[in-house]
Amino acid sequence: MLTRIDHIGIACFDLDRTVEFYRATYGFEVFHTEVNEEQGVREAMLKINETSDGGASYLQLLEPIREDSTVAKWLAKNGEGVHHIAFGTADVDGDSEAIRDKGVRVLYEQPRIGSMGSRITFLHPKDCGGVLTELVTSAQPTEH
Amino acid sequence: MLTRIDHIGIACFDLDRTVEFYRATYGFEVFHTEVNEEQGVREAMLKINETSDGGASYLQLLEPIREDSTVAKWLAKNGEGVHHIAFGTADVDGDSEAIRDKGVRVLYEQPRIGSMGSRITFLHPKDCGGVLTELVTSAQPTEH
Repeated sequence: MLTRIDHIGIACFDLDRTVEFYRATYGFEVFHTEVNEEQGVREAMLKINETSDGGASYLQLLEPIREDSTVAKWLAKNGEGVHHIAFGTADVDGDSEAIRDKGVRVLYEQPRIGSMGSRITFLHPKDCGGVLTELVTSAQPTEH
Repeated sequence: MLTRIDHIGIACFDLDRTVEFYRATYGFEVFHTEVNEEQGVREAMLKINETSDGGASYLQLLEPIREDSTVAKWLAKNGEGVHHIAFGTADVDGDSEAIRDKGVRVLYEQPRIGSMGSRITFLHPKDCGGVLTELVTSAQPTEH
């Protein structure tokens, strides 16, 4: 069951400049940064609020680290902006299977590693009203 | 101070079909519907989780009700997808003035009426890394 908006993924050309925009304009601070080699991105997570399922909602700022990454290709086509949205669940495996059974294309055969050790998968935007949609199960128990 | 992701605004051609997609695929239910004549949209709010500031995070599904609405023009150009993101604040007036003073274009001189009697304004996407960004103060006290 999807129990929260986990994050909004925003693609940018310059991560440092974008992090500074969010800090200077809104006061949002960086909670975590990492490079995800498989996804071909460098990213910063800005924690915005905690959520009623014991998790949290973040902005995820994404800069491509190579030209053949999906985010680089997306930026070349669309320019900067909202790249995807992500819902949090305690069971990304079960939920993605159930959603696949409803006829929505799930992009990975098995969930892969996302931000902060989470397990993630993506749903095809053409099956989701134009919205690239990610499902996330956090690495740690979501209860605080 | 912006204290939550208030909603993600998703533009669609057919609200009923999109509501049914989110219900059938994820189990998300409609929390509220309304027509906003000024914005030229018919909308459904799907409540996803409550937030640590006493508010909540929603998906806002938007269908234009006239061809000259900004959402209709956006859909004609971009197709269906994420139209904007919104941050919640207790003080949309103060925050939008402070953000204007930082050189970000605020689209309304004074906040206008948004979903569920909230007061809203928008920031120019060209000043926000391609992200049309809304600020929202809920109508009711956000404490439950």
